[in-house]
Amino acid sequence: MKIGLLDTLRAANPVVLNISNFVTVQDVANGINAIGASPIMSEEIAETREMVQISSAVALNLGAFSKPQVDHILAMGQAANELHKPLVIDPVAVGAIAYRKQVATDLMSQFQVDVIRGNAGEIAALADVEWQAKGIDAGSGNQDLVEIAKACAQKQHCVVILSGETDVITDGERVVKVHNGTPLFQLHVGSGDMLSSIVAAFCAVSDGDYFEAAQTACVVFAAIGELVAKELKEERPGTFSARLMDALHLTTVADIEKIAQFD
Amino acid sequence: MKIGLLDTLRAANPVVLNISNFVTVQDVANGINAIGASPIMSEEIAETREMVQISSAVALNLGAFSKPQVDHILAMGQAANELHKPLVIDPVAVGAIAYRKQVATDLMSQFQVDVIRGNAGEIAALADVEWQAKGIDAGSGNQDLVEIAKACAQKQHCVVILSGETDVITDGERVVKVHNGTPLFQLHVGSGDMLSSIVAAFCAVSDGDYFEAAQTACVVFAAIGELVAKELKEERPGTFSARLMDALHLTTVADIEKIAQFD
Amino acid sequence: MKIGLLDTLRAANPVVLNISNFVTVQDVANGINAIGASPIMSEEIAETREMVQISSAVALNLGAFSKPQVDHILAMGQAANELHKPLVIDPVAVGAIAYRKQVATDLMSQFQVDVIRGNAGEIAALADVEWQAKGIDAGSGNQDLVEIAKACAQKQHCVVILSGETDVITDGERVVKVHNGTPLFQLHVGSGDMLSSIVAAFCAVSDGDYFEAAQTACVVFAAIGELVAKELKEERPGTFSARLMDALHLTTVADIEKIAQFD
Repeated sequence: MKIGLLDTLRAANPVVLNISNFVTVQDVANGINAIGASPIMSEEIAETREMVQISSAVALNLGAFSKPQVDHILAMGQAANELHKPLVIDPVAVGAIAYRKQVATDLMSQFQVDVIRGNAGEIAALADVEWQAKGIDAGSGNQDLVEIAKACAQKQHCVVILSGETDVITDGERVVKVHNGTPLFQLHVGSGDMLSSIVAAFCAVSDGDYFEAAQTACVVFAAIGELVAKELKEERPGTFSARLMDALHLTTVADIEKIAQFD
Repeated sequence: MKIGLLDTLRAANPVVLNISNFVTVQDVANGINAIGASPIMSEEIAETREMVQISSAVALNLGAFSKPQVDHILAMGQAANELHKPLVIDPVAVGAIAYRKQVATDLMSQFQVDVIRGNAGEIAALADVEWQAKGIDAGSGNQDLVEIAKACAQKQHCVVILSGETDVITDGERVVKVHNGTPLFQLHVGSGDMLSSIVAAFCAVSDGDYFEAAQTACVVFAAIGELVAKELKEERPGTFSARLMDALHLTTVADIEKIAQFD
Repeated sequence: MKIGLLDTLRAANPVVLNISNFVTVQDVANGINAIGASPIMSEEIAETREMVQISSAVALNLGAFSKPQVDHILAMGQAANELHKPLVIDPVAVGAIAYRKQVATDLMSQFQVDVIRGNAGEIAALADVEWQAKGIDAGSGNQDLVEIAKACAQKQHCVVILSGETDVITDGERVVKVHNGTPLFQLHVGSGDMLSSIVAAFCAVSDGDYFEAAQTACVVFAAIGELVAKELKEERPGTFSARLMDALHLTTVADIEKIAQFD
């Protein structure tokens, strides 16, 4: 685990291009900015290739998409592949809505993603494993989370991040578990989307080691959230949201190394 | 007035499906989450029926809509009717823009809403009463607010919430007035939209008594806002917004009962 | 420099109509509200003329636009010209993406804007001057910023605001430089978009003197940001964002006059 990759990221200030979830886009842009990367968003397919060219990584969020956006996502994923930019996908609600699973599966058959980040319900759906998702929430089930994540990674030929109380990161063989975090992430709607784009920022500075990038992004984000939550006496989701931005900007590698818990 | 319905809501954690106003969508999603429900948003008509099926209530916001979104709103309203899910509508700016009034009227002739929530200008427009609205603001007029709300409820065959310094809630016959609140709601753009979706969350746990759900939602939201405002020495709209999220999550039924003012 | 124009704005509470950047729209709406104007947003071309009629100024943001939105921007710009409403444009990323520059140039050949507000990369692009932009960031170059701003103003026949560490405001002949501000604006994604809409609000109360309106808006916004930043011991972008809203509402003309720095 190279937590120092955070300093590399801050020095490089990579441009992260996002197809964003309109629900959380402002928070995601501010989060990318706060941690030390540079966000750019697009809604217009005509500018796709130019946008991908000036970017160091691409994050595709499937939350709340419309049909024109699906065409755009396809074009952007294919351009990322052609131009060799790391590609992260966040398959929002594919565990709850069959239509979304079909769209996500179709898309992923037409480009190769490097990292998938989702909750248990979403990752289970992409691995074709039984799971009970609930709306945008993870839901619950009896399967072993590590096995689900590995099955998804093997099926999709990429790194998988299964977010939850413990994050599971796997390339299909190797597995890292990150134990940091706070329940306040669940109370703040944009947390998962923000992490997905931050994963893309880490991929941009990882020299192609996306398994390393994914686990580092998870430790950094979860540890920063945990530090913010510790300072609050109560579960205050609004205050948490503002201070998370502060902490994404201010927290040092040393701060994170002190509390990082993974195996 | 059953303020305890808030505890029922928090225990049930109902999924609230939203056609949202893109201006305020993030705040609305976070507000639904903070009070104890689970938000889901959609922009794609093809997933409408599936989305309505997994939801416990539907909130349609007409703020800043486009023509494709109108088709989507229609499909979602009709699906909510067919699947017997409570349906709330927020007719943003129908008092100021004739085009919006026409669209809202057309829509409401094609499905039956359970609750309309708007400001005086919006409710007057849907009741065909004279009123001077101004942009997204309520405007002013000489009509009695209770009579306007009752006329709208009778015309639209539903519960009406007329939001303002005093909220008026009516089913066309019975009337409840809620006197809690704070002028800071006016300074925070998403307050009304958030209330509309919170009304839907209360409808989801009300056993079909939407008049009860509507008044309880108004007291809960207005009282929480008032408690937050009291802690601020000055009118600080940014701090208010963050602390409102905190308070939606932390405020108890007992806290609200202490200051609730209605008749 | 008439900083007292802020009081005129607050007394008049002008309606500012926005084609907004979906990334930052909520912050922009809240910022317009907080400073004392009234925001209205639209996504539907059919309501354009009505919307422009009830507005006192129009702000067009080119961030993250799609093709249907371009048609809407064109209709709104032309309606603003016909109805003699001041028109501000924010040409997001035209310095980095050739497609955006082409769209912006096409649009501006079909209506006359009163004020352009952008960073150095964006203003250089519209002046056809060499510059190295980076994503949504300003980039860097060797050209004199005053000359770039003047060239753009002369080419586009309007007032130009070139935002940066020092803001340059020019009508092509006269030049004002504003030295207030804080690096925290760079860490908060919506700052530039918010300023553009606040410029429109000042234009609405300026009796047609858009050069005066532009420079006053810049001093007011930059000084308020500076005051907020001074109270923070560290660079805290999330806290800055919330307190900026507070300060837009609470800061007085006298507070601003005490620290205003321009020449």
